[in-house]
Amino acid sequence: MMLADHRPTENVPDVHRIVGADLGLADRYRAVRHHTEDLAAALSDEDQLVQSMPDASPTKWHLAHSSWFFEAFILAQTDYVPFDPQFNYLFNSYYEAVGDRHPRAARGLLTRPSASDVRRYRQHVDASMLALLEDCPEHYRAVVELGLHHEQQHQELLLMDIKHAFSENPIAPAYTPRPDRPPATTVPLEWTIFDGGLVEIGHAGDGFAFDNEGPRHKVWLEPFRMANRLVTNGEWLAFMTSGGYADPAFWLSDGWATVQREAWAAPLYWREGDEGWRVFTLEGLHPVDPAAPVCHVSYYEADAYARWAGGRLPREAEWEIAAHRVHEHLAGALHPRHAMASTLSQMIGEVWQWTASPYAAYPGFRPADDPTGEYNGKFMSGQMVLRGGACITPVGHSRQTYRNFFPPTARWAFSGLRIATDV
Amino acid sequence: MMLADHRPTENVPDVHRIVGADLGLADRYRAVRHHTEDLAAALSDEDQLVQSMPDASPTKWHLAHSSWFFEAFILAQTDYVPFDPQFNYLFNSYYEAVGDRHPRAARGLLTRPSASDVRRYRQHVDASMLALLEDCPEHYRAVVELGLHHEQQHQELLLMDIKHAFSENPIAPAYTPRPDRPPATTVPLEWTIFDGGLVEIGHAGDGFAFDNEGPRHKVWLEPFRMANRLVTNGEWLAFMTSGGYADPAFWLSDGWATVQREAWAAPLYWREGDEGWRVFTLEGLHPVDPAAPVCHVSYYEADAYARWAGGRLPREAEWEIAAHRVHEHLAGALHPRHAMASTLSQMIGEVWQWTASPYAAYPGFRPADDPTGEYNGKFMSGQMVLRGGACITPVGHSRQTYRNFFPPTARWAFSGLRIATDV
Amino acid sequence: MMLADHRPTENVPDVHRIVGADLGLADRYRAVRHHTEDLAAALSDEDQLVQSMPDASPTKWHLAHSSWFFEAFILAQTDYVPFDPQFNYLFNSYYEAVGDRHPRAARGLLTRPSASDVRRYRQHVDASMLALLEDCPEHYRAVVELGLHHEQQHQELLLMDIKHAFSENPIAPAYTPRPDRPPATTVPLEWTIFDGGLVEIGHAGDGFAFDNEGPRHKVWLEPFRMANRLVTNGEWLAFMTSGGYADPAFWLSDGWATVQREAWAAPLYWREGDEGWRVFTLEGLHPVDPAAPVCHVSYYEADAYARWAGGRLPREAEWEIAAHRVHEHLAGALHPRHAMASTLSQMIGEVWQWTASPYAAYPGFRPADDPTGEYNGKFMSGQMVLRGGACITPVGHSRQTYRNFFPPTARWAFSGLRIATDV
Amino acid sequence: MMLADHRPTENVPDVHRIVGADLGLADRYRAVRHHTEDLAAALSDEDQLVQSMPDASPTKWHLAHSSWFFEAFILAQTDYVPFDPQFNYLFNSYYEAVGDRHPRAARGLLTRPSASDVRRYRQHVDASMLALLEDCPEHYRAVVELGLHHEQQHQELLLMDIKHAFSENPIAPAYTPRPDRPPATTVPLEWTIFDGGLVEIGHAGDGFAFDNEGPRHKVWLEPFRMANRLVTNGEWLAFMTSGGYADPAFWLSDGWATVQREAWAAPLYWREGDEGWRVFTLEGLHPVDPAAPVCHVSYYEADAYARWAGGRLPREAEWEIAAHRVHEHLAGALHPRHAMASTLSQMIGEVWQWTASPYAAYPGFRPADDPTGEYNGKFMSGQMVLRGGACITPVGHSRQTYRNFFPPTARWAFSGLRIATDV
Repeated sequence: MMLADHRPTENVPDVHRIVGADLGLADRYRAVRHHTEDLAAALSDEDQLVQSMPDASPTKWHLAHSSWFFEAFILAQTDYVPFDPQFNYLFNSYYEAVGDRHPRAARGLLTRPSASDVRRYRQHVDASMLALLEDCPEHYRAVVELGLHHEQQHQELLLMDIKHAFSENPIAPAYTPRPDRPPATTVPLEWTIFDGGLVEIGHAGDGFAFDNEGPRHKVWLEPFRMANRLVTNGEWLAFMTSGGYADPAFWLSDGWATVQREAWAAPLYWREGDEGWRVFTLEGLHPVDPAAPVCHVSYYEADAYARWAGGRLPREAEWEIAAHRVHEHLAGALHPRHAMASTLSQMIGEVWQWTASPYAAYPGFRPADDPTGEYNGKFMSGQMVLRGGACITPVGHSRQTYRNFFPPTARWAFSGLRIATDV
Repeated sequence: MMLADHRPTENVPDVHRIVGADLGLADRYRAVRHHTEDLAAALSDEDQLVQSMPDASPTKWHLAHSSWFFEAFILAQTDYVPFDPQFNYLFNSYYEAVGDRHPRAARGLLTRPSASDVRRYRQHVDASMLALLEDCPEHYRAVVELGLHHEQQHQELLLMDIKHAFSENPIAPAYTPRPDRPPATTVPLEWTIFDGGLVEIGHAGDGFAFDNEGPRHKVWLEPFRMANRLVTNGEWLAFMTSGGYADPAFWLSDGWATVQREAWAAPLYWREGDEGWRVFTLEGLHPVDPAAPVCHVSYYEADAYARWAGGRLPREAEWEIAAHRVHEHLAGALHPRHAMASTLSQMIGEVWQWTASPYAAYPGFRPADDPTGEYNGKFMSGQMVLRGGACITPVGHSRQTYRNFFPPTARWAFSGLRIATDV
Repeated sequence: MMLADHRPTENVPDVHRIVGADLGLADRYRAVRHHTEDLAAALSDEDQLVQSMPDASPTKWHLAHSSWFFEAFILAQTDYVPFDPQFNYLFNSYYEAVGDRHPRAARGLLTRPSASDVRRYRQHVDASMLALLEDCPEHYRAVVELGLHHEQQHQELLLMDIKHAFSENPIAPAYTPRPDRPPATTVPLEWTIFDGGLVEIGHAGDGFAFDNEGPRHKVWLEPFRMANRLVTNGEWLAFMTSGGYADPAFWLSDGWATVQREAWAAPLYWREGDEGWRVFTLEGLHPVDPAAPVCHVSYYEADAYARWAGGRLPREAEWEIAAHRVHEHLAGALHPRHAMASTLSQMIGEVWQWTASPYAAYPGFRPADDPTGEYNGKFMSGQMVLRGGACITPVGHSRQTYRNFFPPTARWAFSGLRIATDV
Repeated sequence: MMLADHRPTENVPDVHRIVGADLGLADRYRAVRHHTEDLAAALSDEDQLVQSMPDASPTKWHLAHSSWFFEAFILAQTDYVPFDPQFNYLFNSYYEAVGDRHPRAARGLLTRPSASDVRRYRQHVDASMLALLEDCPEHYRAVVELGLHHEQQHQELLLMDIKHAFSENPIAPAYTPRPDRPPATTVPLEWTIFDGGLVEIGHAGDGFAFDNEGPRHKVWLEPFRMANRLVTNGEWLAFMTSGGYADPAFWLSDGWATVQREAWAAPLYWREGDEGWRVFTLEGLHPVDPAAPVCHVSYYEADAYARWAGGRLPREAEWEIAAHRVHEHLAGALHPRHAMASTLSQMIGEVWQWTASPYAAYPGFRPADDPTGEYNGKFMSGQMVLRGGACITPVGHSRQTYRNFFPPTARWAFSGLRIATDV
């Protein structure tokens, strides 16, 4: 896997370290687990308790649930002594086959177990896992691998969720101070043409992938064009000032109903003040940077923008074909950065990119027969596919075949867009 | 267009007359318009007012809105004198470009204009339309055609909606008495294999089609098998008695949440009593017929059933390829009928068949630039495609490329399913 | 009982005929029942079906329920043959002891039984009741009396409810045309002083009263002043223009929350247009008359106005003591009329007057042991007492001890206010 | 003021110390403030953040708001330097006249300011207040007094709210361990007869009282009987097993609707298990004690029980007259205790006792003209009066004229009941 080396990693808390594919499983286990704790270290015990909406979870819950995953799907099959038998109820997320669980919307009520109880719980699980990994039985390796990628997903969720919680606080706390950044200029919009035809998409080969990335299969594509970079804040401001949020002609019917019900007039986290638009970030409240990619827009907004701009969102197969042309993987920042190249870029590691594709099973997809079969398959309705990974996605976690998904109204992921058109 | 000729049309009010493609436009206009009025004739003025949920509309509103369509999109461009200028507000459905409109959920409050006012409104519109059609300017022909197919859609909605309204009445009124029917036996389930490959789907050619049926385009299909007939009530009862509604393993996550929230335990309109299951129909309340197709199930239920049965729902391209092999078009009844053939059958005209395909634009789709562009395109999110047409769909209205769509929770359409599997 | 004779009854449909106390019970039965049908006669069968909110009922339902009352509480104890056994379920309002009933919010869905079925139902009940009344057993007389006053309450509800339904219709139908009225001037506000002391209130004596009007009991009152007339529309406009709806200082906490949630800025049925404020009435849409009493305000609004005006709402005991000084009983109109006297007036028959008294049991109150015990007692929480009767209250129905009650948010009754102050 | 001396104070954290009326204002300030911090000391910073429903507040918020009260109503009029200017927005509860405020339901999102920030805030306010109190200007003394009683109300709320939060946690944490208690027997129910007549109620005299306790005024009472003790858990179990929650005949209409909507079948915090009913308390989960007073019932339940038991709830004037006969004041415990005397007892300091009286202004009541006028008066709608004070009410805080109030559905206060009857 290629990594972004064309720019220095910014001076954030040491939250984005590469977990090298060349490490052994135990070393990678240690690295991933430690990284989660690093992310939480900037937060007080109080910060780690808060849940600002049912879709978000407390930091403490992420710390515990990602440990529970190893406990429920690996250690419970061994002679492991549970840290606390009640944790199977408290920290199961949505696995019906594993049993009942604490209601999602009530996760923020769990002042007990305390944050320090949860830290001890992690140590307890780690001790057993590392003992197991000294000579890991073959049939556990795939689940350990899944557990590590699962924990990386929760590393991203942890940052998304604390950002949402802090944004609801009138004093607008910053997760970390903002480093100095030189002013940026916007790279001009260019188009890359793709021929289409009978292509193959989906995961195949040796590396890890989630079940929903396969099977690899054929898709027919008509020729299409793909923008070289993401839509910027500057372009979004033009959409706003030209009445984009006020004209139903640009919107899907459900999107227009949402705009009116929620009184949306700008991306989530944008705030208008005497000195223009500012945006709340993990680094605090700052002026909107016109050159940076727009972020925290819903599918409905992305779709409306694309129509306003005379294009459309790419289908996920188009996006995947295009992504294979680009070898830089970004990530490693707490806020998305402007494009630097006039060629096709920003495919992986700036913002998740909404596609025109509803999240559905690939032909031949079958979820696993064990409880991990609930991981992805049962969510295949009512959501749209996003591709690419965001700046806060752990370095090395995303890939060209990766399929993220959110409901069309969701805005708290680091979600933006790129325009495509028919040829 | 081929019509079902292997069974006599049942003795329903004369509601299902073919509108022959060989008639002139004016004659077809007369026939379609007259048919709508025939459907309403069985209902009192009170019946025609009732609205039993926001998704349903009063009969009277259907009568007026289908007239408004001709007024707004054709007559308003001529020297036509409106019947009543307020009707543009009252009877616009969802065309933002045409102006504000009466809230959908409040249609049942319109005791005025009266049912007889609406009947006079129809005559007024008909007089102007028939005068225009005597020598119809070429540029209006396509919209007239659209208006007739639009009115046929409302003929089906009228029956769906009054069925729902009557079902909410404790005295369970029948729209029409039930004719005698001989007992039926269930045709065994057989499979037809399709090779797949690079196929073409979508509308092409001379006949009318809605915009969302095109453009015709290539799709790659893996080999698949398609059931010869629809899933029956008897099979559905087996699903129910084996705990289908009680085991989350069969359900999508959103589906399972819906089952629990709505306490679903059987199809809509089924009622359990001392003598077993009965079903409310337009012909009153009758015992469930095990040989007849199951009807009024949601996408979530259809999907869960298919998983329970070891198969899956067909994708819409698979369905369309299969449908071209069948030449019978059924319809012409108020309740779906059992299969009669062991070969592939019941494709068109028994129940709408849920597919595995989210409703999305075909490659290259562009809605019209005029207000009729709002007809289909803006609904392309959050819904699933259904194919085939139902027994109550006007005879001759559906076709193999026809794409119906409803949210995955909807149950008041005449919706059932057919099973497919991978090969 | 004294009747208003100082002004001619207006030219409304003959809806307000006195039901003389000197008539025999059978004659009064005939007169009351006939009057209900007169009120409905101005409405089409469609109008009689509509239900515009859960609190309101269709005209047809009022016609049926007031008949059911005689059936359930009298005829069912005789050898009477029910018109239709299902009506006991359909037309029971809230009598738990009589059995299950059709949900209140779904009354508007009952297109069947038809309006003409209901008219025949009334005739059927009337035939049996009039046969019974030829020689009415003594133990039924009180329930017949209750049934007639009950029906009069539904006469008022019928008008309230159809007014609400028509107000939701964009074409604003009038129940009846408005007669010509000379312009009015506002009578100056004057105060009458009452000494208070240990007084008695509540019903005692021969005439009919509802159970909640007794027992007659002692109350200690401090001295108070009572305004000679109702608060006018002109005064209300002054409250509005001085920011009454925008300043929380005038409002109870729950009231202020309601103002903000409902965006109240004027009484129900007021509409601002290019030519100022107009008000929707049973006689159509007309300019607000500054001299007429304000009507269709909630308790919260009445309370806020009183505070703004430097006074308070009267307690119900104060109101009752004052009302005994006035001998005119108005009513007999479809819209409240301006005061004509500078002395204490407009006590009975213009608008219901909100009091400061929560609706609670009088000392010693006990509901009846039979099902009619559910008539009033079980509603003694969460509501405020109104006194006086409105212009649409049947002539002769109200009296000084009469206790009406509505939740503090309700506005669809003909509710206004009169100011009192401490001395 | 008389204190309970017939039983030792239980071994709870030292939370219930008398704040002697003979102390100077500064000493009382220190004692009350210190007591609040004692109550919070048993809770972690995480515990102090949680908000389990919109009606409840975090401990941290109580700590801050009770300080803000002194800041906003006293210190802001001096040359005081605010600890943080944003706190005026964050910790205002409901004083419209003081400005905008953080939404009540979002108090639990405030992870910042931290718990230690809030502790420093208290020290900051205390320093300024104690400096002021060294020579307190006369015009501030009444507000200081109000602020101390206000803080005592929040001491009780703090315990109510953390009990609710802990009850939502599946691991059922205890605020404090339970001391040993000897088994108790139930004192037989006896009646005390009161003559009624023209009595006076309400506060008069030197001591502190809230504005809503006056003016003292005359009330006429009919003779009545009052139970010697509170209704017990054993009696409540009899109500439950005899079908009290299942028969609408015992319930107010709104109460019955609430029972069905909320599926109430026992008091809040009661849980049925294999070994019978247990109750969650601040001392953990324990078997229901039949001799102890029932607690955490709503007005609707109290009213239904009284009707089932053949009595009624006392009116607040009746309760107050009776309370003046009893000189013991209990309180000083975390869970209510059984009665020990066969004479009239348990009036003050076991559970708040629902009365039959809606919360309304006494004759002549006028709220203060300054912002503290919002303290009580604006809540005078939709609530019922409770009298007496609970075991967790600060010792010495309640009195015979004290009027507490909650909506009829509320159950998280320590609310029970005592029966009265007419003579």
